Amino acid sequence: MIRINKNYSKLQASYLFSNIAKRVAQFQEGNPDRELIKLGIGDVTRALPSSVIAAFHEGVDDMARESTFKGYGPEQGYPFLREAIAEGDFRSRGCNIAAGDVFVSDGAKCDTGNFQELFADDAVIAVPDPVYPVYVDTNVMAGRTGYSENGRYEGIVYLESTEENNYVPLPYDGLRADLIYLCFPNNPTGATATRAQLESWVDWALANKALILFDAAYVSFIRDESLPHSIFEIEGASRCCVEFRSFSKNAGFTGTRCGYVVITDECTVYDGEGNPCPLKPLWNRRHTTKFNGTSYPVQKAAAAVYTEEGKKQVRELTDYYLENAKIIREGVQSLGYHCVGGDNSPYIWVKSGMDSWEAFDMLLSKAGVVITPGSGFGKCGDGYFRISAFNDRDKVIKAMEKIKLALS
Amino acid sequence: MIRINKNYSKLQASYLFSNIAKRVAQFQEGNPDRELIKLGIGDVTRALPSSVIAAFHEGVDDMARESTFKGYGPEQGYPFLREAIAEGDFRSRGCNIAAGDVFVSDGAKCDTGNFQELFADDAVIAVPDPVYPVYVDTNVMAGRTGYSENGRYEGIVYLESTEENNYVPLPYDGLRADLIYLCFPNNPTGATATRAQLESWVDWALANKALILFDAAYVSFIRDESLPHSIFEIEGASRCCVEFRSFSKNAGFTGTRCGYVVITDECTVYDGEGNPCPLKPLWNRRHTTKFNGTSYPVQKAAAAVYTEEGKKQVRELTDYYLENAKIIREGVQSLGYHCVGGDNSPYIWVKSGMDSWEAFDMLLSKAGVVITPGSGFGKCGDGYFRISAFNDRDKVIKAMEKIKLALS
Repeated sequence: MIRINKNYSKLQASYLFSNIAKRVAQFQEGNPDRELIKLGIGDVTRALPSSVIAAFHEGVDDMARESTFKGYGPEQGYPFLREAIAEGDFRSRGCNIAAGDVFVSDGAKCDTGNFQELFADDAVIAVPDPVYPVYVDTNVMAGRTGYSENGRYEGIVYLESTEENNYVPLPYDGLRADLIYLCFPNNPTGATATRAQLESWVDWALANKALILFDAAYVSFIRDESLPHSIFEIEGASRCCVEFRSFSKNAGFTGTRCGYVVITDECTVYDGEGNPCPLKPLWNRRHTTKFNGTSYPVQKAAAAVYTEEGKKQVRELTDYYLENAKIIREGVQSLGYHCVGGDNSPYIWVKSGMDSWEAFDMLLSKAGVVITPGSGFGKCGDGYFRISAFNDRDKVIKAMEKIKLALS
Repeated sequence: MIRINKNYSKLQASYLFSNIAKRVAQFQEGNPDRELIKLGIGDVTRALPSSVIAAFHEGVDDMARESTFKGYGPEQGYPFLREAIAEGDFRSRGCNIAAGDVFVSDGAKCDTGNFQELFADDAVIAVPDPVYPVYVDTNVMAGRTGYSENGRYEGIVYLESTEENNYVPLPYDGLRADLIYLCFPNNPTGATATRAQLESWVDWALANKALILFDAAYVSFIRDESLPHSIFEIEGASRCCVEFRSFSKNAGFTGTRCGYVVITDECTVYDGEGNPCPLKPLWNRRHTTKFNGTSYPVQKAAAAVYTEEGKKQVRELTDYYLENAKIIREGVQSLGYHCVGGDNSPYIWVKSGMDSWEAFDMLLSKAGVVITPGSGFGKCGDGYFRISAFNDRDKVIKAMEKIKLALS
């Protein structure tokens, strides 16, 4: 008899964004004439940069001729893209990353979801709270947790991100975890971590033989140059950290799909007897066994991000969303609400004090604006909501006007 | 301390095709002037059909304008593609498949690799021998096997595909398995299964509450119209079968990446207490949690396969490779070797009688032709090799001349 993976029954009923989509659809059905503005899901709205489009077309044209046609490529990505990433995102900032350390994929959701497969069933994971649900749900599916009670899974260590610690949890005495998920600039809070804060995490990981999975999907929004752009800017990080990146939020690839993982040769994990072993060959084995490479024209498109023109266009694109974020942040603050994010991040995390789904329904019905309820990201998100700056300027301005009317 | 998934240590040293690539690279280094013809890895060489290219460009252009830009799409695929698949590949052949039964992905390697996640750790899996290594390796990683001895993993049921059963294993008295991987037209043997043979598998699965994972990646090469094109042509299959398809081999998407899984609402698996539960919501949960949809322009390209022009061009493309296959099959037979496949399949499975890697090295050094050693696909592959018809006509003709010279 074919029995299911019993851990699936532990999962909370529905993925956050499906839940939002359902409520929005219901509202629209009941109010077909109401115009809605969506500042919920972190999805970009601006077209791909022209340099990316040109390279994408070239990639497609390569597929139209036998002489330039590409069949199976290297599962890890084409050297032209891996090299452009290593130079453009890391060596240019003083991080010693080689092309061979870069594993190209179809996006950071897959990578951050799949990476836990490499580790023991009984590895203790620590996640921020609030948290991107993928980190948690994939570990639930893998059986590393018990059931959920009051919004928290048994067996997971939750690193609370609160007003008290300025939304940046730090290692503390007595913390015990093997695999730590960190994300800065943070999703959902928009908070950023300083060099000193990241140093404390790397030092802790090295001292405790733990591994940090560092999600840097929003790094292109950092404008404060004192903030690290990569975990590999921190001394010792190459031995205890993996970094995840994505082209979704810098170049608008949410529907185009490309991301990557960086693992150095120094990165060390341990076998059942506690002997050190390198992590990179394990991910390489997983990646080559279960993945067949990212679409070639997509890789061509991604590589254009690193050309002079591409860099300029990505900067313009992220500047555009950051200006939206500023409008949102200032609007929220003018209403007297406490918030974080929105300066080096496209997300604004607002303390409403209300129940999260109540705030969601209120903003939906009164303002016609879709936000993301904070409790969808964890217990510490209750009383908060996330506003995303990923939309067109005029819609963002209109949304803030409507929110002001609704809340004041 | 972060400990690794101990099951990775059970894996055989290297993935078959990496191993081949290594030997070929070594040979080329030692013989830089020798021209090699590769009939090893099943990778297409012909350009994408012009209708696919045109749609691909249109998809890219959609990403260049805000008004048509696509961000995150439905993880399961766009309705335009799911509907085209359901109609074009299934309903047109009398199979009752809805668009909602189709889950679009970035390829069948990912899907066949990931699907086992849905099932209990102690599910007993049965695989054909010889077998596409992904079915086995992903279950080894998940801990459903012991160690490998003499090329076979403890705990796996191997369904022997031999000259005696014409390379189509059938259920037998005493067979006990929960999850059965079947692939027809087969990779690597090229054998096809008749309606009666598939009926015996479906009947067995229903009687034993087992699930069949049916890999139909090579279905577009079937020319014998008496052969089923889909497992869903078999009565009862919708209750106990999942089908995997790919655009890699019909439309040349090995480097473009698109595939799909079909699961009907009727398909039933069992919880820990033996209660029936529907399979589809489980895969939907997995797919939406760990995957973020296939690149939109790629989905546009794939949908073009179902246009009148696309169908014609795919037929021409597969006819081209089938003509290659005929040349290879007849060449091999003229040398007095027994073989299977190559009529309704792009693969020819040749009984050489020699050790597989010896045959590989011999054909490499004497003929300058790269084939795939049968033993790389399992114990029953020893004494065999696979020749792939995926190459240009002139190279196939030349390769067969060289093989004839080397072997005669």
